[in-house]
Amino acid sequence: MTPRALSGVEVRVVEVGPRDGLQNERAQIAPADKIAFVNALSAAGLRAIEVAAFVSPRWVPQMADAAAVARGIERRTGTTYSALVPNLVGLRRAREAGIDEIAIVVAASGTFSRRNINRGIEESFAAYRLVAEAALTEGIRVRGYLSTCFGCPYEGDVPPARVARLAERLIELGAFEVVLSDTIGIAHPGQVQSVLEAVRSSVPVDRTALHLHDTRGTGLANVLMGLSLGVRTFDSSAGGLGGCPYAPGAAGNLATEDLVYMLEGLGVSAGIDLAGVVAASRFIESRLDHALPSRVYRAERRGQG
Amino acid sequence: MTPRALSGVEVRVVEVGPRDGLQNERAQIAPADKIAFVNALSAAGLRAIEVAAFVSPRWVPQMADAAAVARGIERRTGTTYSALVPNLVGLRRAREAGIDEIAIVVAASGTFSRRNINRGIEESFAAYRLVAEAALTEGIRVRGYLSTCFGCPYEGDVPPARVARLAERLIELGAFEVVLSDTIGIAHPGQVQSVLEAVRSSVPVDRTALHLHDTRGTGLANVLMGLSLGVRTFDSSAGGLGGCPYAPGAAGNLATEDLVYMLEGLGVSAGIDLAGVVAASRFIESRLDHALPSRVYRAERRGQG
Repeated sequence: MTPRALSGVEVRVVEVGPRDGLQNERAQIAPADKIAFVNALSAAGLRAIEVAAFVSPRWVPQMADAAAVARGIERRTGTTYSALVPNLVGLRRAREAGIDEIAIVVAASGTFSRRNINRGIEESFAAYRLVAEAALTEGIRVRGYLSTCFGCPYEGDVPPARVARLAERLIELGAFEVVLSDTIGIAHPGQVQSVLEAVRSSVPVDRTALHLHDTRGTGLANVLMGLSLGVRTFDSSAGGLGGCPYAPGAAGNLATEDLVYMLEGLGVSAGIDLAGVVAASRFIESRLDHALPSRVYRAERRGQG
Repeated sequence: MTPRALSGVEVRVVEVGPRDGLQNERAQIAPADKIAFVNALSAAGLRAIEVAAFVSPRWVPQMADAAAVARGIERRTGTTYSALVPNLVGLRRAREAGIDEIAIVVAASGTFSRRNINRGIEESFAAYRLVAEAALTEGIRVRGYLSTCFGCPYEGDVPPARVARLAERLIELGAFEVVLSDTIGIAHPGQVQSVLEAVRSSVPVDRTALHLHDTRGTGLANVLMGLSLGVRTFDSSAGGLGGCPYAPGAAGNLATEDLVYMLEGLGVSAGIDLAGVVAASRFIESRLDHALPSRVYRAERRGQG
């Protein structure tokens, strides 16, 4: 283990609360509240924020206001505002709304891909090739999510060699970074090791990020494993937004507060003000129908009385 | 990091739900329910269970039935049933109830000790010396908790060198094992490393255990750090009992289910049946006024519909 060696290391945290988080919340949030939430997050020092998804409002009503949100947020210099884009229509809408960077999602499990978006892995790559080409031509960076890297609810185990090959193909497609995602929140540190060791034979670790969920309490243990293997970019969601552990089907996003708390303890710099993140979470929690699950957030809230 | 090297390692889990867990619950649990809970835990493969505290019922009403519980439980061969004991009166009551092993608690912070039990560290050692001598004379093992090893709510940082010296003194007192405890749930993996490295200069790592809380989501990351430094005994509480993150002042005990889930993933053997622990948690949850916080427990409950 390498915690002491981590002191002074710099880490990039990608805040996914406004998109991945809110997308999984029942309560419909007003655009003005989403804008205020994003502004609070950037004020807290988050330098990469996924603000919306330019998807069909029929499929994801929560994201119907993506353009209004992207246009309404205050743009801080040095902060990247990204959005999920499923196709060329979404790319056009994102570009018109001034988005800096798009995220695309390919699954490492064919069954999950077909059940989730009704197309297989190869079809996804074919479609995203066009999207990525168009984005790059216009100077928009592409971040490539690879979902179900640590297991699939339908197929079970996903071979690390397959994850490695698909990660390489996302880089070949033009992604600046591959985000290895524990979509269903089952990863444990042994798997993080296996998958990262397989992936680093084809993708440099500095182009590899981890998107973890804390559904089973292993989130920070997986971060620690990732850090020790050289990963320096981690997704998280303010307050654990999108993953209330008390709700059926909870996603359990790794919470930004929990991540920052551990990073600070390890002497790892992420440039984030924990109190500022707590303030952002407190604001958005007031618009939800449940308490946010982040453990550090809850401890801070109790501390504040 | 050493996860792959952990495969095949054996770990001892000390279940503290019936004592440390219930002691921090508001709902008063009937002795018959406590007995059924302990029996369910031993049936799930837990081989060390802290079943009660022989303390004054005036201070801890939940533990007024300690003797009835200790006498009522089914004794499985190979399972150790321990109890917390604050003094010679408690030791006598524990012995009469057939307890195999006692736990004593000394704080690493003088202020915490005085505020919590109204005596300082040296007074504690003087009192426990008599208790330990009497216990050992009667063939009862002594487990020594050292609380606030990773920080004190009043003093702040606790120097690892002080923790190491006090751990050594607990061993000199006759404890077979020192339990380094993160009483207020603030430890992060960097601290676990610092404290364990300090302690191992005076106490062999195979006589060192970790008692962690998951108040800030770092529980399993700290376990991973402890495992990699050779610790093989961890306390945990079924369902995270005693630590509802939604309640003010929540203790946030590390949950047995979360611990077992990660250990299984790492190929570490603890001989515990996860479904059996979930069943025990489900039973005791039905007697509480809130949902149990263990993330794996909640995920399993959702899976069961």
